[in-house]
Amino acid sequence: MKIDVLTLFPEMFEGVFGTSILGKAREKGIVELRTINFREYANNKHQTVDDAPYGGGGGMVLKPEPMFAAVEALTEGAAKPPRVILMCPQGEPYTQRKAEELSRAEHLVFICGHYEGYDERIREHLVTDELSIGDYVLTGGELPAMVVIDSVVRLLPGVLGNETSAVTDSFSTGLLEYPHYTRPAVFRGWEVPEVLMSGHHGRIEAWRREQSLLRTLRRRPDLLEKAELTDKEREWLASVERNEGACRERNEQKSDG
Amino acid sequence: MKIDVLTLFPEMFEGVFGTSILGKAREKGIVELRTINFREYANNKHQTVDDAPYGGGGGMVLKPEPMFAAVEALTEGAAKPPRVILMCPQGEPYTQRKAEELSRAEHLVFICGHYEGYDERIREHLVTDELSIGDYVLTGGELPAMVVIDSVVRLLPGVLGNETSAVTDSFSTGLLEYPHYTRPAVFRGWEVPEVLMSGHHGRIEAWRREQSLLRTLRRRPDLLEKAELTDKEREWLASVERNEGACRERNEQKSDG
Repeated sequence: MKIDVLTLFPEMFEGVFGTSILGKAREKGIVELRTINFREYANNKHQTVDDAPYGGGGGMVLKPEPMFAAVEALTEGAAKPPRVILMCPQGEPYTQRKAEELSRAEHLVFICGHYEGYDERIREHLVTDELSIGDYVLTGGELPAMVVIDSVVRLLPGVLGNETSAVTDSFSTGLLEYPHYTRPAVFRGWEVPEVLMSGHHGRIEAWRREQSLLRTLRRRPDLLEKAELTDKEREWLASVERNEGACRERNEQKSDG
Repeated sequence: MKIDVLTLFPEMFEGVFGTSILGKAREKGIVELRTINFREYANNKHQTVDDAPYGGGGGMVLKPEPMFAAVEALTEGAAKPPRVILMCPQGEPYTQRKAEELSRAEHLVFICGHYEGYDERIREHLVTDELSIGDYVLTGGELPAMVVIDSVVRLLPGVLGNETSAVTDSFSTGLLEYPHYTRPAVFRGWEVPEVLMSGHHGRIEAWRREQSLLRTLRRRPDLLEKAELTDKEREWLASVERNEGACRERNEQKSDG
């Protein structure tokens, strides 16, 4: 896979692209990662890439010419057009499903703005995907691009070794992970649950599934709708929910009285 | 504000912590950013920080001792306990509201796992906040920590200059941003909307608000529920929705016939 990132801050990517999974995937030749400063494509004396917005107001807007020129230079002579991805708060909320979809592409180009807005013609005529990693405000598209790249590259065949692929991923099962414990068995008086030391595989599996369901119910009930559950599990969760609701009510009455 | 990051990959942070907003906030002395390799707190011969999970299964689990020791070393003698934030997929979904809350803290400590799970006793007895930046799988907590740090630091007084604070933030108004345009007025035949060149402030404001509402309706209708809209705006959006629904139906009938 080829990944190009258009940014005014290529130095931000160095630490991340050189380390861990991304560094290894690069070394193995599984992914070719490049950063391109699109200021090089500003076809004017002062290398200007932004300008004031039409209609007034604060802030600056990234001009269309350097962005079009940079993407076209990257894809000259290519048989297939790349996915051109704009990182922005207005984009489609990014999900694991989208990561899987992007991992099947041959060439991804990321456009990262920084402070500035984008001229609308970039969105309309150059970009194939607008993505947002979440509902919070960041300084630029660089960190979001790194997030998307990390999540996509780890899905490429040959990238994850045994040490990592074996970890049960949240979101792939649709449930949050169950609690993990390792040595020491007692740390500052806090003990590992007995069932995990029992050596009884069936009981351990059942406990883990139950904990996974409970954690998802308490923290992210929205995920349960899409998760694959048996009828028995749905019934059990409903009874837990009723009980916890009743407990809360009792406690509230107590503190009122 | 003091921010400490516990990670096995401190080199990942160099590019990001040295550049742009974070680099400037550091230079101005507004924020003190440090990375700490918690392997230094592994109190054993082989500097082991992880171990196999009790109960079996793949993957490794981060041991409690080094993490407790590292956090306690950082906060020794401190008058106030820090917020200790665990980046993990099981965490509370991160939002702009949480960024604002964290920006009022004096000391944040981030714990970043990488591949591994966390021993549950870290969650239960050391951590004050578990955060997830979104529903996708990443290699580690490092990129999520950078995302949270960027979003928090840009809110600290004195960090954003005029060039940035003037940009209307999505999520602060509860609506997605309207389209921006800058020079040239015509690029490859694509024109800037006439209203923006009219010089008529009232019409420009009205157009921008309308575009903001339309974009939010089409891309993120979920945001409209919490947005501050006038009754007239809600009525107008409902009529747009009815019309667009009717258009879709007509088009579907056409393609059927």
